[in-house]
Amino acid sequence: MSNIFRRDFLKTSAAVIAAAAAGGPLAGCAKKSGRTVRKDGKMVMKVTPIELKMRHTFTISGFSRDVTPSILVSITYDGVTGYGEGGLPPYMIGQTHETVQKFLSKVDMSQFSDPFRLDDILTYVDRIEEGFTCAKSAIDIALHDLIGKLLGVPIWQWFGYTASKSPNTSYTIGIDTEEVVRQKTKEAAPYNLVKVKLGIDEVTDKKLIETVRSVTGKPLLVDANQGWKTKESALDMIHWLSECGVLMIEQPMPKTVFDDMAWITERSPLPTFADESCQRLRDVPRLHGVFNGINIKLIKCSGLYEARKMIAAAEALGMKTMVGCTTETSCAVSAAAQLSPQMDFADLDGNLLIANDRFDGMKIVDGKITLNDRPGIGVVPLKTEN
Amino acid sequence: MSNIFRRDFLKTSAAVIAAAAAGGPLAGCAKKSGRTVRKDGKMVMKVTPIELKMRHTFTISGFSRDVTPSILVSITYDGVTGYGEGGLPPYMIGQTHETVQKFLSKVDMSQFSDPFRLDDILTYVDRIEEGFTCAKSAIDIALHDLIGKLLGVPIWQWFGYTASKSPNTSYTIGIDTEEVVRQKTKEAAPYNLVKVKLGIDEVTDKKLIETVRSVTGKPLLVDANQGWKTKESALDMIHWLSECGVLMIEQPMPKTVFDDMAWITERSPLPTFADESCQRLRDVPRLHGVFNGINIKLIKCSGLYEARKMIAAAEALGMKTMVGCTTETSCAVSAAAQLSPQMDFADLDGNLLIANDRFDGMKIVDGKITLNDRPGIGVVPLKTEN
Repeated sequence: MSNIFRRDFLKTSAAVIAAAAAGGPLAGCAKKSGRTVRKDGKMVMKVTPIELKMRHTFTISGFSRDVTPSILVSITYDGVTGYGEGGLPPYMIGQTHETVQKFLSKVDMSQFSDPFRLDDILTYVDRIEEGFTCAKSAIDIALHDLIGKLLGVPIWQWFGYTASKSPNTSYTIGIDTEEVVRQKTKEAAPYNLVKVKLGIDEVTDKKLIETVRSVTGKPLLVDANQGWKTKESALDMIHWLSECGVLMIEQPMPKTVFDDMAWITERSPLPTFADESCQRLRDVPRLHGVFNGINIKLIKCSGLYEARKMIAAAEALGMKTMVGCTTETSCAVSAAAQLSPQMDFADLDGNLLIANDRFDGMKIVDGKITLNDRPGIGVVPLKTEN
Repeated sequence: MSNIFRRDFLKTSAAVIAAAAAGGPLAGCAKKSGRTVRKDGKMVMKVTPIELKMRHTFTISGFSRDVTPSILVSITYDGVTGYGEGGLPPYMIGQTHETVQKFLSKVDMSQFSDPFRLDDILTYVDRIEEGFTCAKSAIDIALHDLIGKLLGVPIWQWFGYTASKSPNTSYTIGIDTEEVVRQKTKEAAPYNLVKVKLGIDEVTDKKLIETVRSVTGKPLLVDANQGWKTKESALDMIHWLSECGVLMIEQPMPKTVFDDMAWITERSPLPTFADESCQRLRDVPRLHGVFNGINIKLIKCSGLYEARKMIAAAEALGMKTMVGCTTETSCAVSAAAQLSPQMDFADLDGNLLIANDRFDGMKIVDGKITLNDRPGIGVVPLKTEN
């Protein structure tokens, strides 16, 4: 090959690379926008910090609480408003009303005139600062709700899912006194699956299951919230639980303990699910062979857009999926519920555990997640005093 | 735990499992359908086998051809028609006009009254029979086109992409005589990237590159189509190619040779892409560490729905992506182009290589893929004689 055409090539190649670096090949072109997009469209984002009151003091391995902060985001465009939310439970370290509002003040939506550009907008938001997945999810949900409303279809329909395939939700019982656990298990009567939080010690955990079992014979899900200490005792407990009608076990061991977790999964009579070990898309491949499935929560993964990618990655790897939530209003819970037709399990009771919901949204009918036909995430704000 | 509640549990659990097996928890519920769905809606599918005439006899490592069969599928619903296509190149073994029409005759779309149920419909089609990904892709594209038209938005917008981010397409030059290669390279003048098919032997391959380089200094992509024999000679060739202004190398070794391919990728100065090694979603994780990227083609993976999952799986694994096509009309090529804003490379020249296109669709402007704003895949049938 002669020097002449090598020189030519290098010149052309450099030009192509420079063009790409300048924002994509067509960055300078006047591209007409789609049907629903006005050229002078502006998105206006509003942020509202709220406090959710728990019906019962809620205890999981490590934390107790009576109230949970949450952040509401609305995005208005062309007279249409999309709603989003991200709960701020204490285990989402560093994400408080103050820090999250500071993060959201850095988000400049005015640079985008087209809400349909989900990939670009969410990539921009994600790159503003590491973390803050609760706030990122609130924006992601509001955008999805807005687009669904602009298209006139529910999100589940936009995604190609069949609403009637949504599974039962589980109803969660925290760690508490025998009396309260018995009382809460009775309150779980309308649900077909009960999720029990364990992870204290063998005696307390077994006692808790037996208390639940003294009230109900329904199938159980168990979440150990990283609470168990050794792989051998964890496996023993899982064997015992499988005899008690437990269907699956979430996060038996601390989140970074992969070797022991793989050892447990290989021997476990129940499917194991990663919760704390699985935050975002990039975590999914490294959990293959470690857990049988992943618990996808919007506040962990930054929202619906990335959640769908996690479902795809899990399918590629032959892993199961479940969708969870935290203490949130029917806004965030209805958003998560849009994914439920694709899920093996759903733990979407966050809105049922609070006394001051702000939205009317998806319902639990005979224990099953029941998506409505409203466009977007299917929620309507309730009139509230503040 | 007493026997009483164990018995109760087992009963309830069995009932839940039976309900799930009967088609999902809400199978019996009267679920209202969404805005665009008429209760009495029927999808009518039409299949048209066509033959595409090549502008030039096309040679890649192993095959030569003047015509390529293709299959057109249209799905009409509520007065709206979606178009789809799957090319049937000779390397898609066992997929001919005859076999594909036989497969398509088994598809009963009348059981679905809602085209938005993409996941259910495509899962049903995929499970009818193993293989036939060309025909499955034609159905998938027609459904996407139909839904895009019902929603009134282009597919790229439905997916949340930004059309202006589409990359340059490469223009492909097959294996041929020096004179023809020189002529074809001249015809590639409107394009910014030239893809060269290699994989014969070292002397012929180098001669071919030098012939191309005698005409143009543009950056090249190289596809060896599994043609190289040993990892050492393949790596030597890749080093030589990287000196000639080649940007990436596709499928240097036979498709099942993973260990040698991983050895090459570890040492390669150019990113390596899997083509024949990467058919469907389940292939993606096992290619991690073997190739740097994957070439997604709709006829390999069964269509856009699975292609998007492959993009997500590749992102989870930190792998690059490109989108390719075969000899097809602007129908299938425009469908593949909808994914191009997410791609590192695009090789979408299949429609440019034929003399009898059937559709007006996406255009190449100054070498770049230029998506239009028409709803669906953005194609309009051309008037043809037959």
